[in-house]
Amino acid sequence: MIGVYDSGFGGLTVLKTLRTALPRHDFVFLGDSGRAPYGGRDVDTVLDFAEQCVERLFEEGCRLVVVACHTVSCVALRHLQRRYCPNPCGPRRILGVTIPAAEAAVALSDGHIGVIGTTRTIASGTFATEVAKLGPHRVTALAAPLLAPIVEEGWDETEIAKLAVARYVAGFGDIDTLVLSCTHYPLLLAAFEAAVRPGVRVLDPSPAIAQSLLAWLQRHPGYTEEGTGAIRTMCTGDPESFRRNGERFLGSPLPPTQHVEEERGSLAHRDSVRVRVGQIVR
Amino acid sequence: MIGVYDSGFGGLTVLKTLRTALPRHDFVFLGDSGRAPYGGRDVDTVLDFAEQCVERLFEEGCRLVVVACHTVSCVALRHLQRRYCPNPCGPRRILGVTIPAAEAAVALSDGHIGVIGTTRTIASGTFATEVAKLGPHRVTALAAPLLAPIVEEGWDETEIAKLAVARYVAGFGDIDTLVLSCTHYPLLLAAFEAAVRPGVRVLDPSPAIAQSLLAWLQRHPGYTEEGTGAIRTMCTGDPESFRRNGERFLGSPLPPTQHVEEERGSLAHRDSVRVRVGQIVR
Repeated sequence: MIGVYDSGFGGLTVLKTLRTALPRHDFVFLGDSGRAPYGGRDVDTVLDFAEQCVERLFEEGCRLVVVACHTVSCVALRHLQRRYCPNPCGPRRILGVTIPAAEAAVALSDGHIGVIGTTRTIASGTFATEVAKLGPHRVTALAAPLLAPIVEEGWDETEIAKLAVARYVAGFGDIDTLVLSCTHYPLLLAAFEAAVRPGVRVLDPSPAIAQSLLAWLQRHPGYTEEGTGAIRTMCTGDPESFRRNGERFLGSPLPPTQHVEEERGSLAHRDSVRVRVGQIVR
Repeated sequence: MIGVYDSGFGGLTVLKTLRTALPRHDFVFLGDSGRAPYGGRDVDTVLDFAEQCVERLFEEGCRLVVVACHTVSCVALRHLQRRYCPNPCGPRRILGVTIPAAEAAVALSDGHIGVIGTTRTIASGTFATEVAKLGPHRVTALAAPLLAPIVEEGWDETEIAKLAVARYVAGFGDIDTLVLSCTHYPLLLAAFEAAVRPGVRVLDPSPAIAQSLLAWLQRHPGYTEEGTGAIRTMCTGDPESFRRNGERFLGSPLPPTQHVEEERGSLAHRDSVRVRVGQIVR
């Protein structure tokens, strides 16, 4: 069983390609939808949330966790790895999406890569750091703080989405490849392809991430076994809204989602969502 | 000196009307821009942030703090009042914007009020609760999670903003009055007026909030004295970006902004903004 962690629904676009690459493996997906988006949050908060989510997936019995969220991968992956799997031969491993995305971009690009993502992803500079380890490519990075919220609002097929994508994409110069460094953006793929200059390749890195995981599993047997191709889902927000939204990202029906909620620094299972209305006094 | 607290820049639209109503008073404005927007955050986080900001304004010497942010007013005002000013004749007071907004709406409406704001503001139901205390008006409430981010992005005069406002406004039925229950929305006033059905009044409650404060000060002398009409500003985010963005909200130049940052649960002054790039390990 492989754990997949995302800040919200977006990582289901990654889960979709992981299931295609590993159809007989079981997955448990944890979406921190109640506290999404992470993109504008301070790094300490991102680290806290990431710890809670990864711990929950380990408690579910996963020995391998894939951090599907680009923001967490760019900012907190090293921290998670040092904290939970300091020994590379130890019982647990955590993998991210930034290195596979950088590898795919370098393989595709002629020399000038554009990368677009959340404010926190872009501010980290991590994607450019990983590209620099692979080749002499230039990287132009731009934050698009409105795009993930537009997709979360279900507006990805509207004129608003097209105009917003075009406005952000206009900020890139003579790039030859544009990397979609946010798991929400595959739902805007058509808008990106319409917005870039002729000849510019738009790269959704999810298939490359899945291929990279496949190769990693072949080199590192024992972190997961084949199962029945089942998926389970958990989220910190409203499970019904997660299921409804999530199906757009996964591209197929979702099973009922369990609700988990922060309780003294950990994510605990809850039978129902606690709705707090009106003035809150504590 | 009156303290004005907001989750970001938006409250500067409230400060603008407060200065018009009280031109000889001094103001100190604290914008929690580094942690904005609050609209999608869980209530405990909103309460924590609000405590830190109000405490900082008290430390600056304010005896009266106006919570300019509708989200904080709707969710955390009662908590702040019980914690910091349990005695109505005590040395400090905290006022919000929800009750003045509800009073202004009831005075203007023929019977069916629409209210639009952040997800958290709308989910609280607090505006409708305050309207119900004042009259038999119906309230239709809709969350518009994308509008504050669009304004923060500086896109308030774009076609994207017009289309987004029109899309949200189409969700209201036969309202006669639409209350803009977020301090960012006055920058979208023209888009709102273009989007509503003919005859529907769009209410920016800021002038009513200022008049309400004026009347309160006359009933409660001693919480502030007249000064020279000076303003000071502090923010938790990037001060230069705060000044640049803030001038659009205040409608006039802003003085240099001090940077404050969370340190062990309080907001401490900082000479420079700590930029954290790359992978963060703690």
